[in-house]
Formats: sequence, structure tokens, C-alpha cells
Amino acid sequence: MMNRTYNFGAGPAMLPESILKQAQEELLNWQDLGMSVLEVGHRTDEFIALLHHAERTLRELLSIPSNYHVLFLGGAVRTQFAMIPMNLIKPNQQAGYIVSGIWSKMALQEAERLKKAYCVASTEPQNYITIPEQYELSIKEDSKYIYYTPNETINGVRFPYIPKVKGIPLLADMTSCLLSEPIDVRQYDLIFAGAQKNIANSGLILVIVNEELLNQEPDPAIPTMLNYKIQADNHSLYATPPVFNCYLAAKMFDWIKEQGGIGVLYDQNCRKAAQLYQYLDSTDFYTTPVSPDARSIMNVCFSIKDKTLEETFLHSAKRRGLCALQGHRLVGGIRASLYNAMPIKGVELLIDFMTEFAKEHN
Amino acid sequence: MMNRTYNFGAGPAMLPESILKQAQEELLNWQDLGMSVLEVGHRTDEFIALLHHAERTLRELLSIPSNYHVLFLGGAVRTQFAMIPMNLIKPNQQAGYIVSGIWSKMALQEAERLKKAYCVASTEPQNYITIPEQYELSIKEDSKYIYYTPNETINGVRFPYIPKVKGIPLLADMTSCLLSEPIDVRQYDLIFAGAQKNIANSGLILVIVNEELLNQEPDPAIPTMLNYKIQADNHSLYATPPVFNCYLAAKMFDWIKEQGGIGVLYDQNCRKAAQLYQYLDSTDFYTTPVSPDARSIMNVCFSIKDKTLEETFLHSAKRRGLCALQGHRLVGGIRASLYNAMPIKGVELLIDFMTEFAKEHN
Repeated sequence: MMNRTYNFGAGPAMLPESILKQAQEELLNWQDLGMSVLEVGHRTDEFIALLHHAERTLRELLSIPSNYHVLFLGGAVRTQFAMIPMNLIKPNQQAGYIVSGIWSKMALQEAERLKKAYCVASTEPQNYITIPEQYELSIKEDSKYIYYTPNETINGVRFPYIPKVKGIPLLADMTSCLLSEPIDVRQYDLIFAGAQKNIANSGLILVIVNEELLNQEPDPAIPTMLNYKIQADNHSLYATPPVFNCYLAAKMFDWIKEQGGIGVLYDQNCRKAAQLYQYLDSTDFYTTPVSPDARSIMNVCFSIKDKTLEETFLHSAKRRGLCALQGHRLVGGIRASLYNAMPIKGVELLIDFMTEFAKEHN
Repeated sequence: MMNRTYNFGAGPAMLPESILKQAQEELLNWQDLGMSVLEVGHRTDEFIALLHHAERTLRELLSIPSNYHVLFLGGAVRTQFAMIPMNLIKPNQQAGYIVSGIWSKMALQEAERLKKAYCVASTEPQNYITIPEQYELSIKEDSKYIYYTPNETINGVRFPYIPKVKGIPLLADMTSCLLSEPIDVRQYDLIFAGAQKNIANSGLILVIVNEELLNQEPDPAIPTMLNYKIQADNHSLYATPPVFNCYLAAKMFDWIKEQGGIGVLYDQNCRKAAQLYQYLDSTDFYTTPVSPDARSIMNVCFSIKDKTLEETFLHSAKRRGLCALQGHRLVGGIRASLYNAMPIKGVELLIDFMTEFAKEHN
């Protein structure tokens, strides 16, 4: 059996080995039920208890106030791009989107297609290597909400601040950063995140939403499954949820607690990213286009000055067990994603490899 | 460690033990990648190959013609209740629904809410214990499609025939019967099925759709994620798919092939159901309300004549490792779901138990 490799992919991403081992051990017999968690019904006492435990632990980790719902929804995170405007923008209303990368741009496009939405600021002219400054945000007073993406995975940029939005509800796509750093949930009215970075395997979306936001008559043309209020009223059990993903998420929340909480992980995440950026800044062989104050701590994007070497780089890295370092297919280059489950050891090995590779090919 | 129990739940349901064991064995190191399939990226060569393999095997098992798309979608099956009318009914058009149980009724209600739909026939006045006859179907010539549910899990009824629909596209919710019996895919224009009965764990939906059905401009108000054409054009990879569910589905398709194909499983399924119905017909202690020609082979619904004994029955059954026999919360009673992975042994043990229980409490 091969040793565990380091998966630097932007998602699906690494999971803690201890969680995988637990899942492996109990895969045929969960909670002494004589069946797998892959088979267990979503309305059994055991699964309901699991979901409650998961929600309780998440609420504890993030200090989620009691007037916020926590939803465990099935499917892919892109469904949120439609659910948000469909649920929250009525005819003659609009919402504002801060465009700081390809994901927030796609969210805006979906909202524009389905309802009325506008761009608050965009760094597209800068190829998304900076973050708009507060003074650049053109917020219309009558906006139903302002939407932004604190961390963008494709270009590796991160908001170093929380946008001030004149008391308008602030919504955030935290798919690539939720649970990687402390946040004050009360500053947001809706947070969502796909599971496949810092939470569990792909197929689950977490939504944390202020109940006040749902206290309005939603558009009757919304598919029932896309109606937040119905999902909230049914405690995520309107339809069959992705049971196994919820099970892994529960384990992940426990794991984060065992590590000492989000603050401890945030320190580690900062250290991992700082080590890599520090190395990048120290060499001319590699280059990172991202503006220093906009650098993501989750997704470190860079390239080799001599682009023709990148394929060899990726190939050699993979042979060393440093996997999935290729940049997103829309932008190319190299990207190292450093989510919670990436050990510091992985980053150290990556830097060692990069150093050697640079020496060899300089 | 407890022995494996028999899960008679209507879904999530049993999986073959051999598949669980394979999944367990390779959970930390899939295909010698040094990572779990729970971590592997959906755009890696390995996952793409897996998805191709899964699709190829499914096409082979069901002889799916090449002009049909096969989609692997994330989320819960109820999303299809909205996707179908949203994609296929334009303004001033309508579609017909055969209502033979609670699921098809909910599908009709969702279609009526979002577009224009009508009821072709309904057995609601009979409490869904029969199936409408062909002559009872009131099909309007201008229907865009006719929708039905060949097997209804809640009341345990099954169509003993395929409705003749005057050349109109026929759509079928096969969530609880796909892969349990041979079908001629060409008789349908769209088939969908949630994974958690005969395919994999919850969180995956299979859609088999005639490409002609998608050769029309869809409503621009459809969320991108709910657009069949976009999902088909992107080969189910428009967004991150539920990777692990696809992996289990691939194993299930291989397993069905190893068993000798769907015909062999169908014979076993018929035998399992026949044994149980035969026993039910032989006793006065239990009773099944379902009309003999409408009996499901997947979900056998019955009750104890003395209803007050049902709780004891369920409790004692569970202690014997015969689990999740309670009927759906909307109808009560007892239900034994006998999907592909339920061994004949499970049915025999159930009948033994029922016989003893009847003796004891008569």
C-alpha cells in the first residue's frame, strides 16, 4: 500500500486521515446497527441524532446565534447562485454583487438572468488579482442584499476586510473558507458553503441563514426544493438528504473541536500560507500575480516564469506525492490549495520540492 | 461486532455487502492514488474514467440507445418534480400526470404550481391501492408529455402495464424500480431515479433522457443547475458531482452485471415478493390492502389486523435484525422493501418471524 499523498486540489480536497480511518472502520456497522451509514434511513433516530449533533457542534464552533437556521442541503453549491435571487429578490427589487473572481461573476450572471441584479464593483479588468477597496463599492440604497465571495479559489484572492454595506443584508459564498478562519456570523444574513473543501465530501451544501431573511412571501414560481423557508421548516429533511456527507461533516466538526477550534486552525492556515508566499517572494524562478494584500490563505496561485516548465513541474510533483497542483482550467498555472486538512508537513514538502526543482531547472 | 441486519426500509436501503467491503478496503487509498475517493477531484483522469465506466455499464445493462443521454446529478430526487415541467412545458402548453400514489401526486402538484399540468387519472379516491386501467386514462392530445410512477413506495403499488399514450413522450419516475426489472428504454423519453434504493447511497439522481426531448429552447427562467441541456452538454460535470455516490453506483452496476444482469435480479425479486405475498394471503393475522394485480414487487405493504400489535411487531422484528419495517409516516402500517440487495434469506427470516409472531399473538 502506497503512503498517503498530499492533495493540493481546490476541491474535492483532503480530509483528515483520522476521519477516513473512523469511516473505514465503521463502514459495515455503524453504531452497532448492523448496517452501514450508507444504508441507514434518514428518518431513523440514529440519523436524526447525528444531524442534531452536527448542527450543535457547528453552532458551537461558529457561535451561530439561535435566530439563524442551519441547513444541510444536497447537491452542488452552484444551485445557491439561483436559490438566493429566486428566494430574495421580488419583482421591482434588485441586489448588488461584488465581483472579485470567476465564481462571484457567475453568481451575478445567474442572478441577472433570473432577477434584477447589478455589479457593486468588479476586479475583472485587473484579471481578479486584487480585491476592490471599500471606497470602490457602489452600493445602491434599495438593494435587497449585497453578495460577495470572501475567498475566490480560481485566482487565489481573499477579502482582507468585511465590506460595509449600509445596513443592507450581506450574503457570502464561503465555500472555500468556511471553518478555516473565525467569523462573526451576525455580520452576515446568509452564508453558504459547498462541503468539498473544509467540511466533507462533495454533494452537500451548508447554509446558515438569518430567519428574518426568510420572513417574506417567496416567489410562487420557486421549485419547492429551492425554497429556503421550506427547507428550514423541515429541518433539512423535506427530501432525503445526503446522509453520508452529513455523517462526514459531523466527524469534521468534531475534529475541528478536538484541534482546539477554528482559531487554532486559522493560525495553522496562516502559517502554511505564509511559508509558501514567503518562499515565492524569495525566488525569481516562480512568480505570483496576486496583489500581496489580496492573497488567499486557502488557494496559493503561482506560475513558473518559464511557462514551458510547468508540465514537468506538475508531473514531477505528482511522482513525489504532491498531487493536483495544476491551476484551474480557466486560468492555468499552478495552485496549491491549503485547506484545514492539509498538514504543515505537506507545505514543507512542497517548498522543498519547489526549491529543488528551481535549482535543477535554473 | 454484530452481524449484518436486514434493512427493509424504503430508502436509503441495503447495499450488497461485497460492495461495502470493497469500499471499506479502498477507502484510504483508491486506485493506488494515495488518497480516498472521498477526496479525489472530479476532473481527474481517474474520476472521469470511473464516470465513463459507470455510464458504459449502465448503458449495457439497460440497452440504452445512443440517442439517450445519461446524467448523474447531485441532490434529491424531488428536484426532478420541478426540473421536468420547467424544462419541458412552455407557456400555453400542458402535461398530463397519472396519479397512482403520493409521489406522483406531489409531482403533479409541483408541475401545476410551476406550469400547466392536469391529472390523467387518479386512484386517490381508492386510497392508492389499485392502478388505473388503460381505458381510464384521459389523455389530452396536446400534452407535451405524460408522467407516471411505475412503482409507488408509500402504498406499495406497481403498474402491471406500460401506459399507451398516443405517441406523446412518456416520462417515468423509476426511483424505486430502476434496475430491478427489465425495461425497454425506447418506450420512454425520460426516466429518472434517486440512487438510494437500487443504485447507491442518497445524494445522486440518474436521468436517462432522449436527446430529442432537449432539442428545444428551454425557459430562460430556469436555474442553470436545473437545465437538462446544460447538464447533458457538460456530461454531468457542469458543477461538482457527488463523487462518492457515482463511485458506489459504478460498483453497483458492475455487481448487477456479475449477478447475471437485470433479468436474473428480476427473477429473484419476483420470487422474494411472491413468497411474502403468498404468506400474507395464507393468513388472517396479517392483511394487505393492495389489489392483487397492482402489488409492488419492491415494497410490500401490509398491516396486522389487530393494529395495536404493530408496535410490538416492529420492536420484536428489530431485535431479530429485521429493521425499518414501519410503514411510511403518512400511511402507517408495515412495509417490507425488497430491493435488489435484499437477499432471499432476509425474506425467509421475515416470514419465519411473522409466522411465529402470529402464533404467539393469535
